[in-house]
Amino acid sequence: MSSFILLIHCPDKAGIISKVTSFIFNRKGNIVYIDQYVDVENSIFVMRLECEFLDATNIDSLKQAFSEELAVPYQMFWRIYSAEAKLRMGIFVSKYDHCLYDLLGRHKAGELPVDIPLIISNHEYLRSTAEKFDIPFYHVPITKNNKPEAEKRHLELLRQEKIDFFVLARYMQIIPDGLIEAYPNRIINIHHSFLPAFAGAKPYHSAYKRGVKIIGATSHYVTAQLDEGPIIEQDITRISHTHSIKDLILKGRDLEKVVLARAIKLHIDRKTLVYNNKTIVFI
Amino acid sequence: MSSFILLIHCPDKAGIISKVTSFIFNRKGNIVYIDQYVDVENSIFVMRLECEFLDATNIDSLKQAFSEELAVPYQMFWRIYSAEAKLRMGIFVSKYDHCLYDLLGRHKAGELPVDIPLIISNHEYLRSTAEKFDIPFYHVPITKNNKPEAEKRHLELLRQEKIDFFVLARYMQIIPDGLIEAYPNRIINIHHSFLPAFAGAKPYHSAYKRGVKIIGATSHYVTAQLDEGPIIEQDITRISHTHSIKDLILKGRDLEKVVLARAIKLHIDRKTLVYNNKTIVFI
Amino acid sequence: MSSFILLIHCPDKAGIISKVTSFIFNRKGNIVYIDQYVDVENSIFVMRLECEFLDATNIDSLKQAFSEELAVPYQMFWRIYSAEAKLRMGIFVSKYDHCLYDLLGRHKAGELPVDIPLIISNHEYLRSTAEKFDIPFYHVPITKNNKPEAEKRHLELLRQEKIDFFVLARYMQIIPDGLIEAYPNRIINIHHSFLPAFAGAKPYHSAYKRGVKIIGATSHYVTAQLDEGPIIEQDITRISHTHSIKDLILKGRDLEKVVLARAIKLHIDRKTLVYNNKTIVFI
Amino acid sequence: MSSFILLIHCPDKAGIISKVTSFIFNRKGNIVYIDQYVDVENSIFVMRLECEFLDATNIDSLKQAFSEELAVPYQMFWRIYSAEAKLRMGIFVSKYDHCLYDLLGRHKAGELPVDIPLIISNHEYLRSTAEKFDIPFYHVPITKNNKPEAEKRHLELLRQEKIDFFVLARYMQIIPDGLIEAYPNRIINIHHSFLPAFAGAKPYHSAYKRGVKIIGATSHYVTAQLDEGPIIEQDITRISHTHSIKDLILKGRDLEKVVLARAIKLHIDRKTLVYNNKTIVFI
Repeated sequence: MSSFILLIHCPDKAGIISKVTSFIFNRKGNIVYIDQYVDVENSIFVMRLECEFLDATNIDSLKQAFSEELAVPYQMFWRIYSAEAKLRMGIFVSKYDHCLYDLLGRHKAGELPVDIPLIISNHEYLRSTAEKFDIPFYHVPITKNNKPEAEKRHLELLRQEKIDFFVLARYMQIIPDGLIEAYPNRIINIHHSFLPAFAGAKPYHSAYKRGVKIIGATSHYVTAQLDEGPIIEQDITRISHTHSIKDLILKGRDLEKVVLARAIKLHIDRKTLVYNNKTIVFI
Repeated sequence: MSSFILLIHCPDKAGIISKVTSFIFNRKGNIVYIDQYVDVENSIFVMRLECEFLDATNIDSLKQAFSEELAVPYQMFWRIYSAEAKLRMGIFVSKYDHCLYDLLGRHKAGELPVDIPLIISNHEYLRSTAEKFDIPFYHVPITKNNKPEAEKRHLELLRQEKIDFFVLARYMQIIPDGLIEAYPNRIINIHHSFLPAFAGAKPYHSAYKRGVKIIGATSHYVTAQLDEGPIIEQDITRISHTHSIKDLILKGRDLEKVVLARAIKLHIDRKTLVYNNKTIVFI
Repeated sequence: MSSFILLIHCPDKAGIISKVTSFIFNRKGNIVYIDQYVDVENSIFVMRLECEFLDATNIDSLKQAFSEELAVPYQMFWRIYSAEAKLRMGIFVSKYDHCLYDLLGRHKAGELPVDIPLIISNHEYLRSTAEKFDIPFYHVPITKNNKPEAEKRHLELLRQEKIDFFVLARYMQIIPDGLIEAYPNRIINIHHSFLPAFAGAKPYHSAYKRGVKIIGATSHYVTAQLDEGPIIEQDITRISHTHSIKDLILKGRDLEKVVLARAIKLHIDRKTLVYNNKTIVFI
Repeated sequence: MSSFILLIHCPDKAGIISKVTSFIFNRKGNIVYIDQYVDVENSIFVMRLECEFLDATNIDSLKQAFSEELAVPYQMFWRIYSAEAKLRMGIFVSKYDHCLYDLLGRHKAGELPVDIPLIISNHEYLRSTAEKFDIPFYHVPITKNNKPEAEKRHLELLRQEKIDFFVLARYMQIIPDGLIEAYPNRIINIHHSFLPAFAGAKPYHSAYKRGVKIIGATSHYVTAQLDEGPIIEQDITRISHTHSIKDLILKGRDLEKVVLARAIKLHIDRKTLVYNNKTIVFI
């Protein structure tokens, strides 16, 4: 048996669902999940579909047929993924270790079905944590003057390890445009505020100063605009005047861990689709 | 233009989605919403679909065609509703008025697109509230000895006013089996606990005694088993040891109001479907 | 028996709690609630205390003694309130009626122990709602040119009805500085976003555009800086890409109602205390 | 400087707060936190107080004085703890590793200021995880016939390592009464349901069967009545009909981790106090 995941967005038109489902049915495939949405404002049709074929259907011939019969006539932006393929995930860290411990613990506990071939850091600080979990650790220091070299080294490592997407697990450096362009909608960041509130540095300090009663965390795809990429997941927790900035930082850690892990899981399961700087999240 | 909502459940089989969507497409209908789910454990296929036809498609001929071409061959349990039809909702109350004020306020504010032709109560107590909102109020007292007469009077009033479904807005009497059978999955109750915890009487007292840190409310369809009907919606709120039973009751009121209102809205929008004592809630 | 509520903030010093509790004890009072907090950053001590005296203790002589023995030596900002006194609350509305229905329903249902002697609106639109609940309604139109006259009329009405504080229940006009100065920390607004995100006009439109996964509402005291006053209460609800702006507006209504009602309740119960543009909320 | 935490419960009487705060003040101590609560129903006074002394105040002489001057006359149940003392925490596990990874990750990341001198398990399965984090691992198998020996071995290990309290991190064996009596209110369990709903085995299966819309997790002190001990913390997450039992288990893991960690933190910070099978949680 072979399983596939299909993601589409295209100009909305009558009959698309019928055409796509017939396409699967005619090849003796069974649809096990379908979810669609019409963005009425922009007249865009969006769909996610999971299907199974009893025989070992070839993904390349499926793609070819889909392209000719449907994608071209309907001007679709589309992807077909094998449901079994395991993604290769990179992790970027600096000194904060709570998200890293959380991700590695989840990986060991079987919650994140990916390979993790590398951890990259601008500090030596977390090497021993990486080694505890038997994951290769690469120290790529970043200074005022070595940014182009560091970017080159990052790209080299990511390519060498065939990384599909990577995660900024509280990585405290700006990602340069070149890297973003090489991994569009494939870099996942966790920001420690309820975006768009408190974008930028030191959000817990700003939240404390403003006297908010709730703090949050936001996971988003990284774009060239800092903290403005398409949001994948957010969550919040209540605070009160009794909490110091240190308390906010501590309470926020649990949010950061959970929100980042959920966003990664959605990405792995091919449940996200980005257009117009928004993330469609299929559930 | 005419709009319809289609709800289906049937034994799972390959090709159902393709068949149903083609059925709509072939009649020049456009699908504006589709959501499906396969209950793998029981091998049951469930679907909700909204479609539009540019012409004034006749609902009866549509039903006839659907029945012949799809429902019979696929052994479907199914419903086709006109999306424009306004439901007629009854309200049962006793003495608590918070849910009643909330529902009537929402109705006036345009949030609940139904007609409300009657409020039935076992007390005179809330007549003036009903009159404030210009809704006919019927006092049907209930005593140890008049239960069969009261049930008869209820049925009479519900039929006379062509009630489609009714809501127990903190109505403090058991609904007799005859009434439940006459309105299967069409009686919505609000229970003031997080079911199945604290079923039965005085749940806030029990929650207080147990020292829980969170209380809840549950809206469900009424079945012959008290507080065991299919759950439509639940929500919770945090409490602490500082809250007395009176505080729980007060905090719970907001939960009851919101949870009941959400459940009613889901029912009105034809977003619920019941089988095996569970409510599928399409979103 | 007489009950009082005491609110204090002052420079932090050792021994304040002991001094204040002894002051009550020496007058044969019993403390039934005490909560304090030290703002370490600013070295400010904050306290709320409820106490009971078996005899009919005179509030004025209590205030006099407190002032001499404690408030002056410790440089306290302080208030002593009779716990029995009923506040007089005004309501300002425009055309949106959901918060108004909610507040009036709660008032009728006994949840808000205040008198409501007036509703002021810049439109005639909600007069019948006010009358349904037997509350005097005053239409004070606002145009580009009559703002000083409108403000004068507002002040006149508020004073005539001895209003203690008033609530902007989705009132769509800016409150002029004169009115704010006359009612410092006594004007409660509900803003339909999770402040500081989406301050200003049309927050649901902005939230939709940004693609957030959670929306919120914020109740705050009104200051001269629009949407920047001290926050009393906030809450949130999850949304998804499937929700249109209209859906956000609808979902947001329940948030606005609940958040505003909670903030009002905290104010009525004398559980809020403002300094440095933050609201201490005792629970 | 020396810091202490004081926990009290006793029959309610006028003047207790004043007496206790004067006791601290007269010894030149400064109160940095005070929270009290009167259980009106049972007429019980409860208090938590943190205080600092500039000199190296001796805890034993403080206890002696407190006992004579206050605890005896007011019939107090009381504890005075040094705020600096580090507790020694044991962990019991079986085969599930997600809570264990979470706790050990938090410990490494500095979130749990305790010593962890031992991990005990009825399986060999998680030895390598314990070793990864350099924590001694003891395998104490449990069979139908060796229960008394296993209990003896547990007690021996706990005493040998001077364990102050221990945590059942999804430990799948019943704790015998002897062990519970030796560690009253010092054994913390995580139950994977929103107690009292779904007590006992396989709560996710029961939640699935009942069709609830929200699942939860509960951390509580262990008593002789299974799943009926005083609740420390609870939390919930939304589910829908689309989630299989496997999904519930996966979603529940995050709840279990966070709820257990919060309960442990409250215990470590001496913020819990138990009486009448309820946990007072100071915040």
